[in-house]
Amino acid sequence: MLVVKKFGGTSVGNAERIFNVAKRCIADYNAGNDVVVVLSAMGKYTDVLIDMAQEINPHPSKREMDMLLTTGEQQSVALMAMAMNALGVPAVSLNAFQVQMHTTSAYGNARLHKIDKDRIQAELDQHKIVIVTGFQGIDKYDNYTTLGRGGSDTTAVAIAASLHADLCEIYTDVDGVYTADPRKVETARKLDEVTYDEMLELATLGAGVLHNRSVELAKKYGVTMVVRSSLNNHEGTIVKEGNKMEKMIVSGVAADTDAARVAVVGLKDEPGIAFKLFNNLAKKGINIDMILQSIGHNGKKDISFTCTNEDADEAKAILTDAMDFESIDVRKDVAKVSIVGAGMQSSAGVAAKMFEALYDANINIHMISTSEIRITVLINEKNTERAMNAIHDAFDLGNAD
Amino acid sequence: MLVVKKFGGTSVGNAERIFNVAKRCIADYNAGNDVVVVLSAMGKYTDVLIDMAQEINPHPSKREMDMLLTTGEQQSVALMAMAMNALGVPAVSLNAFQVQMHTTSAYGNARLHKIDKDRIQAELDQHKIVIVTGFQGIDKYDNYTTLGRGGSDTTAVAIAASLHADLCEIYTDVDGVYTADPRKVETARKLDEVTYDEMLELATLGAGVLHNRSVELAKKYGVTMVVRSSLNNHEGTIVKEGNKMEKMIVSGVAADTDAARVAVVGLKDEPGIAFKLFNNLAKKGINIDMILQSIGHNGKKDISFTCTNEDADEAKAILTDAMDFESIDVRKDVAKVSIVGAGMQSSAGVAAKMFEALYDANINIHMISTSEIRITVLINEKNTERAMNAIHDAFDLGNAD
Repeated sequence: MLVVKKFGGTSVGNAERIFNVAKRCIADYNAGNDVVVVLSAMGKYTDVLIDMAQEINPHPSKREMDMLLTTGEQQSVALMAMAMNALGVPAVSLNAFQVQMHTTSAYGNARLHKIDKDRIQAELDQHKIVIVTGFQGIDKYDNYTTLGRGGSDTTAVAIAASLHADLCEIYTDVDGVYTADPRKVETARKLDEVTYDEMLELATLGAGVLHNRSVELAKKYGVTMVVRSSLNNHEGTIVKEGNKMEKMIVSGVAADTDAARVAVVGLKDEPGIAFKLFNNLAKKGINIDMILQSIGHNGKKDISFTCTNEDADEAKAILTDAMDFESIDVRKDVAKVSIVGAGMQSSAGVAAKMFEALYDANINIHMISTSEIRITVLINEKNTERAMNAIHDAFDLGNAD
Repeated sequence: MLVVKKFGGTSVGNAERIFNVAKRCIADYNAGNDVVVVLSAMGKYTDVLIDMAQEINPHPSKREMDMLLTTGEQQSVALMAMAMNALGVPAVSLNAFQVQMHTTSAYGNARLHKIDKDRIQAELDQHKIVIVTGFQGIDKYDNYTTLGRGGSDTTAVAIAASLHADLCEIYTDVDGVYTADPRKVETARKLDEVTYDEMLELATLGAGVLHNRSVELAKKYGVTMVVRSSLNNHEGTIVKEGNKMEKMIVSGVAADTDAARVAVVGLKDEPGIAFKLFNNLAKKGINIDMILQSIGHNGKKDISFTCTNEDADEAKAILTDAMDFESIDVRKDVAKVSIVGAGMQSSAGVAAKMFEALYDANINIHMISTSEIRITVLINEKNTERAMNAIHDAFDLGNAD
């Protein structure tokens, strides 16, 4: 079996942890598997490098920043190879140049084009554990790039895809993906399995175990992922294409408190007004999530939308500047609560059951949006945990089927 | 003019020093020159990395060690580019992959094969200052290598050669090359110029301003080097092919206290005995410097030689094991003192004058060896400074011609 195992910075933060990861990988290797390990920079080392850069230049060029940051993972992989060698196992470290991990030139937030598998395969053929730098790539001019947040997960999945690996294990500090955040919902239960689409919705909604780009890539190439803990040997959560017959109606409840509602009241009710409003925001790079438009009356209408708390005030300023309306109102004390489930699309009454649970808990709903496998409501932020528990109970998510 | 400027780790040890180097390079750039900068790792950062490796593996693979160490220069060059950008000058950093600095696979002590000039030239054509990692290279399998001691000097000269640079400036903590070590000879004078051959002899003899490999390379490709201080703007010492007409008879006096004399007494006086002795040492990697062989008598002869203090005891053990002789004696309290000068070969009486100076100072000579441009004597170590001063005075080296 060929396994790709990805460990984050915390897992390689000091010599003891490096050896723990090394032993874990060696166990797989000794069981007869081909093992590729993807690592991030050690602990908070990326922050140390950012501080060094800040001291020199408060606005460093992104190209040079990536040149600096990529040294972090290179140190991790070299030290890991030394650790495995110390334990008597042949290992070799490779960086983005040596693997040839081709990306776009968008320094700081590049996208992977293509990963060459030849070098990794050649080293595996020599029965070595291959340790690869996550997070980094090279563009077509041989400049270093980095992949942005969650980049190492993406590297791991891309390598798994190019090598047709049997499994891509993502090690984190939690046991897997839960029906809800266990810190907020006591009866939350670890899921054995979620589909790519469910994982994507959960990630977007702040469940945040895996980065979206890695899941999208896994879905595209059919890479089976496992999210599991680096602290114990519990089985994790498998992320893969769902078997429709067995699929749960609702997999989990997620909440995102980083949401603000902007209500624009008394816009002129004429064609193109919504386009104009959202185009003004898009030009300034403000991302919109939920949208609610009132029915027009007396030649006026209202449009409400949600964005991140950070963007809300800027959105207000932009619209005040560019549009005609009666009033604009920003509320940051709101939160999004969602249910996600691949079975939802073929199952009636799911939305009704969710709304009933909230009604029974006396929680008011400001806005509603849906996708094929998700229903999201906007509520007052103070009700977030109560809402999650009410919904979790209503769908009996604490009990496995 | 195209100038290559090399700065060591101390010169880039902190943000302030990085800006000092940046300003110095920018002055050249603003004067209309093309500027390539070669940097070592910051301050003692290489030692920090070595300590990290030691904690993981006391005997790390050299391949992985080079993978780890090469991150040091990459950080230096990225930060330097940021500093120059902060000062409003376009700059770009490049590492061994980006330049394509090809070397042998002798990790930790690789030799440069070839440096591609295309990328550096392309960046210069865009009017950027180009900042390149010293000390590092890549082998034909795309593994990182390092060039060993003095490697960054070699990188600088190799880049100067490949770009046909007008000048290769090596910045150090001294003003240039002196007629003798100023800490030992008060009247020592900075030389305006030395030939490659003189510099090579001086380097070998522990004057140690430049590493031999860089000087050899400069000689081979006719690169004009300048050794100068990073702490002031004094003119340095030019190292180039000598103009025979103007050449000084003696350029300098150098001493090397890391020498031991091994005397092997009562060897059988038969053909091949010297070959057998030195072959035994060579097989174990022991380098021999001076050699003295007595005239045989009564079927016996003696052979004395010098090596480093570190190798002396091992040499004794090897010979005791492998050869027949009456006795063997190791003396570590000896030193080599040499005069070097490209004019020596066409000038009679130089050796006599050196020996006279030592005789007048009542200093006994144990052994003598010579090359075309060098005369070396082995004396008691305690006499080293007195000998240097006596010779320096005899040749009036403190006064410029």
